[in-house]
Amino acid sequence: MTEPAGPRVRAGVEQGVGTVVFDNPTRANALTLAMIRTAPQVLAGLADDDAVHAVVVRGAGRRAFVSGADVTEFAASRATPDAARAFDTALDEFWAAWASFPKPVVAALHGACVGGGLLLALLADVRVAGSSSRFAAAAAAIGAGLPVWAVDALRRAVGPAHAMEMLLGAQWVAAPHAARVGLVNHVVPDAEVDGAVTHLVRAIAAGAASGGLEAGALWRARGRPAP
Amino acid sequence: MTEPAGPRVRAGVEQGVGTVVFDNPTRANALTLAMIRTAPQVLAGLADDDAVHAVVVRGAGRRAFVSGADVTEFAASRATPDAARAFDTALDEFWAAWASFPKPVVAALHGACVGGGLLLALLADVRVAGSSSRFAAAAAAIGAGLPVWAVDALRRAVGPAHAMEMLLGAQWVAAPHAARVGLVNHVVPDAEVDGAVTHLVRAIAAGAASGGLEAGALWRARGRPAP
Amino acid sequence: MTEPAGPRVRAGVEQGVGTVVFDNPTRANALTLAMIRTAPQVLAGLADDDAVHAVVVRGAGRRAFVSGADVTEFAASRATPDAARAFDTALDEFWAAWASFPKPVVAALHGACVGGGLLLALLADVRVAGSSSRFAAAAAAIGAGLPVWAVDALRRAVGPAHAMEMLLGAQWVAAPHAARVGLVNHVVPDAEVDGAVTHLVRAIAAGAASGGLEAGALWRARGRPAP
Repeated sequence: MTEPAGPRVRAGVEQGVGTVVFDNPTRANALTLAMIRTAPQVLAGLADDDAVHAVVVRGAGRRAFVSGADVTEFAASRATPDAARAFDTALDEFWAAWASFPKPVVAALHGACVGGGLLLALLADVRVAGSSSRFAAAAAAIGAGLPVWAVDALRRAVGPAHAMEMLLGAQWVAAPHAARVGLVNHVVPDAEVDGAVTHLVRAIAAGAASGGLEAGALWRARGRPAP
Repeated sequence: MTEPAGPRVRAGVEQGVGTVVFDNPTRANALTLAMIRTAPQVLAGLADDDAVHAVVVRGAGRRAFVSGADVTEFAASRATPDAARAFDTALDEFWAAWASFPKPVVAALHGACVGGGLLLALLADVRVAGSSSRFAAAAAAIGAGLPVWAVDALRRAVGPAHAMEMLLGAQWVAAPHAARVGLVNHVVPDAEVDGAVTHLVRAIAAGAASGGLEAGALWRARGRPAP
Repeated sequence: MTEPAGPRVRAGVEQGVGTVVFDNPTRANALTLAMIRTAPQVLAGLADDDAVHAVVVRGAGRRAFVSGADVTEFAASRATPDAARAFDTALDEFWAAWASFPKPVVAALHGACVGGGLLLALLADVRVAGSSSRFAAAAAAIGAGLPVWAVDALRRAVGPAHAMEMLLGAQWVAAPHAARVGLVNHVVPDAEVDGAVTHLVRAIAAGAASGGLEAGALWRARGRPAP
């Protein structure tokens, strides 16, 4: 089947591993409202599919993981107060769907991982990054505050001092520093990210399939309240 | 005095430092039921001995720290439902004795540290590892879940992302990576582990002896509830 | 204006950044009772000054950050039980003023950072250290216990295992190890500390000025209860 052109969420399942791809490469994989609304449905399907034991999340291409909301859409998608409220609700549901997803998630990180992309990466359980990837809490020019849960997630990942520096300094963190401070699990050469993620997620899927980690322990290991 | 042959727990005290050695080297220092039942008594003696200010825990030899329960014994030690319950109770008491031990514990880690051995290492306060040591939450072929307290301890030690990877990936973590993620305090050449541990634990014993850390602060530093 | 000679707290504001300097270099910047009492007033002024968006704390010179209380003063400042109580109250108020300061604080760390100096560094949000700096919870010869909040802060910064080692081992931690375990955010050559701190704190001040982190998120990122 020929896939539709334009921004979309792609999903698939292979060898026990589901994959979710945010595909809007001309806009650094920014999230359109349609993508924001589709992802929770995709996740619900992967959660219900007994053949899926772990999930990979990634962006299309190697220039960026995922950006935040696609601001070029805002004139249309947030045109009225009602539309803006509906947009915000959809975004809340998007984050909640990732936060409560009951199977392990591995993020494959290429290029820029900033703002909403950093939040999405923090909701994954394991992060593998390419050596030229880079990370920021928010673009300095925007300086928008992160939601409370994201501040907590960042602090849990890197500790209070590095979290504070990323939250306020608004400077890019390069991949080696990201590994050193615990923002990502591993940094590998860019060309090896996909292979490393596949190797790791299949081992995780096999572990999950064999009952290595029951649901309660999954939530405990994540270190955040069960939804 | 000639020591008895076969699996045993050895203990001693020298210069303010108690040592506990799990000695079953032909089976990677796996814990027999007798060893599991002896250790809490040994710890109680060290806790009560005012001459002891810190403790080293280690396995015999350099091929492994400690394995979990010695499965070759199971046909006998878990032959009936009552025997299995008694075994599980003994193992619970073993972990509880380490978790509540009221003096600092340093683990000297050689070779494989997996399953029950990793749990025991996580209950030590400070971990020093040889450069060829390696770590895993569980053998992939078994995939048994860890108890809740162990998941919590692992997450406190290495953070949620590395904990999740170790819990589910079931892959070996090499010593340098273990140091980078905070699973061990130090990695030194294999031949220098014992010297480094002796140097460190004597400094710790001296600090404890001089009142450097009262009991309440000890529990707070451990970051887990007092028993 | 010519500054007075002798131990003092110096403060200034430039380009949105306040600076607090503990200046008693002949005694490793030890804190006299007058300095202990002055600092909370200085901080209150910086908290109230809307032109200040972030603060740098440092010691005078490059041989030490800040020592604890100046013990050479004790014969006078703690001569009677009433005087000792007043001294302890002033010290409590000193720590409370730093712990509750509502703007980001960056510590510039040169040389020795030990005892009370380590505590002050831990109350900063971000720490930048020179390559020859070194860290210890307490001098071995004294072995005094740290207050509960300081044990908690150390454990949050470096995790339980490194905290326990520092609290009891009473050994110096060199700058590279301090960076690896998360005790400091960055280590740079000694001659570059001041430039790196200026660069970072101005970015942080700009972020704070543009509303990048509202007060609630600031406290959450710090990972300690709001005062």
